Amino acid sequence: MNQDYIKPDSWSIIEEGFDPSRVKSSESLFSIGNGAMGQRANFEEHYSGDTFQGSYIAGVYYPDKTRVGWWKNGYPEYFAKVLNAPNWIGINVFINGEQLDLNSCKSLYNFQRELNMKEGWLSRSFRATLENDVQVEVYVKRFLSLELDEVGAINYEVTPLNYDAEITFQPYLDSGITNEDTNWDDKFWDTTNVSHTNNQAFIEARTMKTNFHTCTFMESKVFISNKPILVEHNVKADSNRVSFNYSYPVKKGDTYSIQKFGGYTVDRNHDKSELIEAAKRILKTASGIGFSQMLKNQKTAWANIWEMADITIDGDEKAQQGIRFNIFQLNQTYLGKDSRLNIGPKGFTGEKYGGSTYWDTEAYCIPFYMATKDQKVARTLLEYRYYHLEKAIENAEKLGFKKGAALYPMVTMNGEECHNEWEITFEEIHRNGAIAFAIYNYYRFTGDYSYIPEKGLEVLIGIARFWEQRATYSNDKNKYVILGVTGPNEYENNVNNNWYTNYLAKWCINYTIEQIEKVKAEFSSDYSRITKKVNLTDKELSLWKTVSDNMYFPFSEKYQVYLQQDGFLDKELISVADLSKTHRPINQKWSWDRILRSPYIKQADVLQGFYFFEDHFSNEELEKHFDFYEPFTVHESSLSPCVHSIQAAKLDRMEQAYTFYLRTSRLDLDDYNHEVHEGLHITSMAGTWMSIVEGFGGLRVKDNKLSFAPKIPNQWKEYSFKVNFRSHIIKINVSHDKITFILDGKDSLDVMVNNKNIKIEPNSVVTV
Amino acid sequence: MNQDYIKPDSWSIIEEGFDPSRVKSSESLFSIGNGAMGQRANFEEHYSGDTFQGSYIAGVYYPDKTRVGWWKNGYPEYFAKVLNAPNWIGINVFINGEQLDLNSCKSLYNFQRELNMKEGWLSRSFRATLENDVQVEVYVKRFLSLELDEVGAINYEVTPLNYDAEITFQPYLDSGITNEDTNWDDKFWDTTNVSHTNNQAFIEARTMKTNFHTCTFMESKVFISNKPILVEHNVKADSNRVSFNYSYPVKKGDTYSIQKFGGYTVDRNHDKSELIEAAKRILKTASGIGFSQMLKNQKTAWANIWEMADITIDGDEKAQQGIRFNIFQLNQTYLGKDSRLNIGPKGFTGEKYGGSTYWDTEAYCIPFYMATKDQKVARTLLEYRYYHLEKAIENAEKLGFKKGAALYPMVTMNGEECHNEWEITFEEIHRNGAIAFAIYNYYRFTGDYSYIPEKGLEVLIGIARFWEQRATYSNDKNKYVILGVTGPNEYENNVNNNWYTNYLAKWCINYTIEQIEKVKAEFSSDYSRITKKVNLTDKELSLWKTVSDNMYFPFSEKYQVYLQQDGFLDKELISVADLSKTHRPINQKWSWDRILRSPYIKQADVLQGFYFFEDHFSNEELEKHFDFYEPFTVHESSLSPCVHSIQAAKLDRMEQAYTFYLRTSRLDLDDYNHEVHEGLHITSMAGTWMSIVEGFGGLRVKDNKLSFAPKIPNQWKEYSFKVNFRSHIIKINVSHDKITFILDGKDSLDVMVNNKNIKIEPNSVVTV
Repeated sequence: MNQDYIKPDSWSIIEEGFDPSRVKSSESLFSIGNGAMGQRANFEEHYSGDTFQGSYIAGVYYPDKTRVGWWKNGYPEYFAKVLNAPNWIGINVFINGEQLDLNSCKSLYNFQRELNMKEGWLSRSFRATLENDVQVEVYVKRFLSLELDEVGAINYEVTPLNYDAEITFQPYLDSGITNEDTNWDDKFWDTTNVSHTNNQAFIEARTMKTNFHTCTFMESKVFISNKPILVEHNVKADSNRVSFNYSYPVKKGDTYSIQKFGGYTVDRNHDKSELIEAAKRILKTASGIGFSQMLKNQKTAWANIWEMADITIDGDEKAQQGIRFNIFQLNQTYLGKDSRLNIGPKGFTGEKYGGSTYWDTEAYCIPFYMATKDQKVARTLLEYRYYHLEKAIENAEKLGFKKGAALYPMVTMNGEECHNEWEITFEEIHRNGAIAFAIYNYYRFTGDYSYIPEKGLEVLIGIARFWEQRATYSNDKNKYVILGVTGPNEYENNVNNNWYTNYLAKWCINYTIEQIEKVKAEFSSDYSRITKKVNLTDKELSLWKTVSDNMYFPFSEKYQVYLQQDGFLDKELISVADLSKTHRPINQKWSWDRILRSPYIKQADVLQGFYFFEDHFSNEELEKHFDFYEPFTVHESSLSPCVHSIQAAKLDRMEQAYTFYLRTSRLDLDDYNHEVHEGLHITSMAGTWMSIVEGFGGLRVKDNKLSFAPKIPNQWKEYSFKVNFRSHIIKINVSHDKITFILDGKDSLDVMVNNKNIKIEPNSVVTV
Repeated sequence: MNQDYIKPDSWSIIEEGFDPSRVKSSESLFSIGNGAMGQRANFEEHYSGDTFQGSYIAGVYYPDKTRVGWWKNGYPEYFAKVLNAPNWIGINVFINGEQLDLNSCKSLYNFQRELNMKEGWLSRSFRATLENDVQVEVYVKRFLSLELDEVGAINYEVTPLNYDAEITFQPYLDSGITNEDTNWDDKFWDTTNVSHTNNQAFIEARTMKTNFHTCTFMESKVFISNKPILVEHNVKADSNRVSFNYSYPVKKGDTYSIQKFGGYTVDRNHDKSELIEAAKRILKTASGIGFSQMLKNQKTAWANIWEMADITIDGDEKAQQGIRFNIFQLNQTYLGKDSRLNIGPKGFTGEKYGGSTYWDTEAYCIPFYMATKDQKVARTLLEYRYYHLEKAIENAEKLGFKKGAALYPMVTMNGEECHNEWEITFEEIHRNGAIAFAIYNYYRFTGDYSYIPEKGLEVLIGIARFWEQRATYSNDKNKYVILGVTGPNEYENNVNNNWYTNYLAKWCINYTIEQIEKVKAEFSSDYSRITKKVNLTDKELSLWKTVSDNMYFPFSEKYQVYLQQDGFLDKELISVADLSKTHRPINQKWSWDRILRSPYIKQADVLQGFYFFEDHFSNEELEKHFDFYEPFTVHESSLSPCVHSIQAAKLDRMEQAYTFYLRTSRLDLDDYNHEVHEGLHITSMAGTWMSIVEGFGGLRVKDNKLSFAPKIPNQWKEYSFKVNFRSHIIKINVSHDKITFILDGKDSLDVMVNNKNIKIEPNSVVTV
């Protein structure tokens, strides 16, 4: 826990004072990104202390040869590594020849870091006295442009306070970088060209194996007291580094500063022979606009995002800071411009987990993007899976499935599976269901059916085929069973009849059959195209139906609950509350076998099904299942508290709902799990948004209408959020005594509030 | 399969003709060992083709840092690697300056290799023509002395056939060796000293981390036509190699030969400062005896082993060859002289699996050693586990068990667990039961109860404690259950209530309670000592009894069989016979998840329990279970066919029993699994012995009496084996029309033959 480290502030993340042991944590927390690239908050100048260097380019990864203790048939050949890209932010600083290094300076005062979420920039300031007794004041500001997403900008100011001093800025590019995480210490980058002209430099490098071509570039200008000056610069270039030296005799009290533009052009967006040309164009544009104007544009761009995505919380500054941090990081990670990209679990803030895409995207992130962005962003996320359908079919074939059955990967960069724990890779197959659910959810929310006949139906058919083949008939039960799976609760492995998986499988088949019928009736040319392409027969459909109609669900008569899996009641059912604190977190304290045979649940499993399909179950059923399972839940996944918060709110247990909310919203800021140095939990941040909007706000879409059932935690005075619902922008304000709605635009909108229909007229405040 | 590669011969393994693609397989098959060291049949002279170099010293291993894809809490820090030791067999040969290398010579004729099992030596002969057109005849013989188990001897003869030639022998020692199997390419050996005096050389080297000190040594003499000659030798020594050059102008038709003695002294047997002195002593002894006399002594030593251990089969030379190969290899691997050693699954023939000790020792090997050696050998094997009890308690503590509960390791060199697949390491806990069963089995066979009060009872108490803690109470079943295990059938992971494990757990507890009572009544001072040491209370015993009395066993009313585990009947029960051959072996054709949810059984699981505890079940029950499980058994473990052979014989299904027998006895000779190049399946060889003695011979011990129920496969005319039963040596001969017994010694012995008591007088043939 980290509680007093980050200052409460409604719009900024602020760190005061320098603590070397916090450097890696802060590098994560103060990360910046613009959807196309991102970077940890590494210092520009040299730092000899403990640091975790990371700069990442969306979609650029390395297939690291799989490493296991004991090879099992079916393991993927590689694990896609999030790749630390060449460094362009570096600016070494020398004062009278002595290098500025916060780890070795004589003294350091007034260290402050600010991540301004409202405007989208990171700053750092401090006063340092060097071994040579020169005291300098430093102020640095940096951002990655939303407007020009291949470029970032840095303004680095140094003021000698007690002496005149010769100050040298040494901006550089460096492709001699490594990953923290590598299986075999492979070299990931091959530098093909290092060049420079005037005040610009370029390093072309390609990734080994994947052969992504990139150009890392920079351009610098120096100033005295904000006035540009011409300084002769020395250039030093070698096989994977190029640096410029700008030395200047600075008078005591004067500010010597450097503005550096830099970034990446990549062959995803340009021909690989034109990466330098593209870099020159972007540099010309950026320096033409200039640092100050770019910063203004950055503020405007972020204002536009916040206009739609902001959630305000009155009366609880830490909660306010938490939710904005989550919304900010989600927008730094993914903006929906490119269907080849997705939302990595650590975004651009670390390497852990690798890959870019988990089921988190469909299960947790899509609702956020649907409600706070143009609906084409969510459609772009769906399309990502459509483009991977062929690979998903190949994945399934590798596991022995046939005839177009599709198993989407657990972790992927390009559609191929690249995770290698058998109990997860091969058995955590429920991910397939979340992908189908997202298609349903997208249509339910946006009303845009066109996606299904155009693309979605093929995905659904591949998934339904998988479930039909994966279910097997038990003579003993006289039912179809699904054996050997891992559910969302990864603290159970290779179980039989995980209720959530079985339920999802049945639902997927039924939903697919319904969509086939609807497409057949309403989009006949799509129907012909698809059935021909995938060779779908009535016989196959009838087989699906047999499986779905006869699916087995473990149920306890005694407790009147669905069982998480066969045999769950054989466990020693000691609640988490009765477990000594010394045993927790169990994933750090217990060996794996002990966890597996315990009843403890890592994250919502049966309750995840109740979350997805809440209209299939009564409130009484929800309550029974919540009361049965939550007491065994250790919430050791970042994706756990949000679902529980939403359900507690639904059950009117606001204290519990609020506790869960806090745990999810400040998970990283307060470093609950002692791991923020590895990067942020990006995908779970969307769960925090859901906790407020779906949990406290009670937002649902029912029969093509928005529905609300707003509640408010006692600890808050008031909160508000906005939703983009089928081109209606509606803002809702909830306080303890009233709910108000404001609708943008021209058309009125009927919404349900606590089950009553309310007509909201545009541009007027409606109070309930 | 390899069927025509090894010539049928009743006492030798013979390979004729040279096939470079077979070199690695033959290196395994022709391996030699003497219990203290062993080596693959690598060529003495340089070989530039594909080879797998291996020379191993019993008990000398390297703890290779664990490598996994995803670390799980509880994984051991290292995996004990069988360690390729410095090479002492090397003799490079130069003919007129050209190196003899079977991979590059101009032509090669009459290549023959023989492993003479009767006399315990390996020979190789060939005619080679070199690029320089000199044709030589080579004959090499080598053995590792049983009499002096630190030393081996080589006689290497070269005869130039068509020209006079300058021939150079270059005997060498080399510690610059590597392992094929290494996780991180660590350096395993640190050479501390290379020295030589006269015709002797020594390399002292210690293993990294484990710090085993060894001295590898050699001494050489050269001869012309068997007459010793003095040849000035050049010495070449560097940091990890020392070689002598013996060049001599040899007349066409004369035989130039070298005798080389070499081996290892290790600090397990000598003070580490005296390894060279010890090596000098052993060289002095060996060269004093001389090659020819040592070879004669070797024949005598092997004759003594065969006198007791031989099994003859008349009318089936391949079966005869197979069983002798198995008996020979077991004796090469372990001779029971040192309770710090054990029987590695690959013996001294390869690196695979690492470690020296699996449950194979107790479950498969002990019966062989009990019946064919002095009974103290089996006791030594039991003591090995006694000396590891403290480590077994530590292993259990690492997994959360307390109060002296002991979990013996899955794989070990020194008592510490060093295997790292969670589903095996943490969950294949039935191994604990085999260790208790071996104590029972030892007493049953030998009648030596003293081991139990002296040592065994402490082991039993540790094991019983483990089972009591590992079983948990299921409110749902109102029984004790054992959740999350892997049974002997490793094609099921993390299952609940594996019948074999539950049955063994109950038996262990009951047997331990009985022994506690017996020791209390009959060995009161041992009882006091032990109960005080382990702090055993009546309350604890009553808790054990509750668990044992209320243990749950999955049972099918419909099939009237115990179920391998909960949920087994939910599987698609398609028999192996109905599975397309293209799917087999499933461990190469199917992904792991598919194997797990299939009904296919790797090796006896429920039937392993019926084997251990056959007197608990009727023949009808055995038949029912055999008929239920065998059809789903793929026998993809080398330990599978033997148990099935024994049970098929018991059920009078001799054709099936014989088929299983063939599969186990020539598994390596015929290379059924295409993996003999990795080494031999040593521990399963004991299963082959059991197939004949317990299966066909029907040997049991019942009420302190030997009992036989002999049968004979149609394919055989006659077979015989010997058993050392409580100092009675009895030989039994079985043909289709009669059974004869011959008893050594002075005292008569009552045995049961087909349930009738027969008194056998010594030194007379009794025919039944």
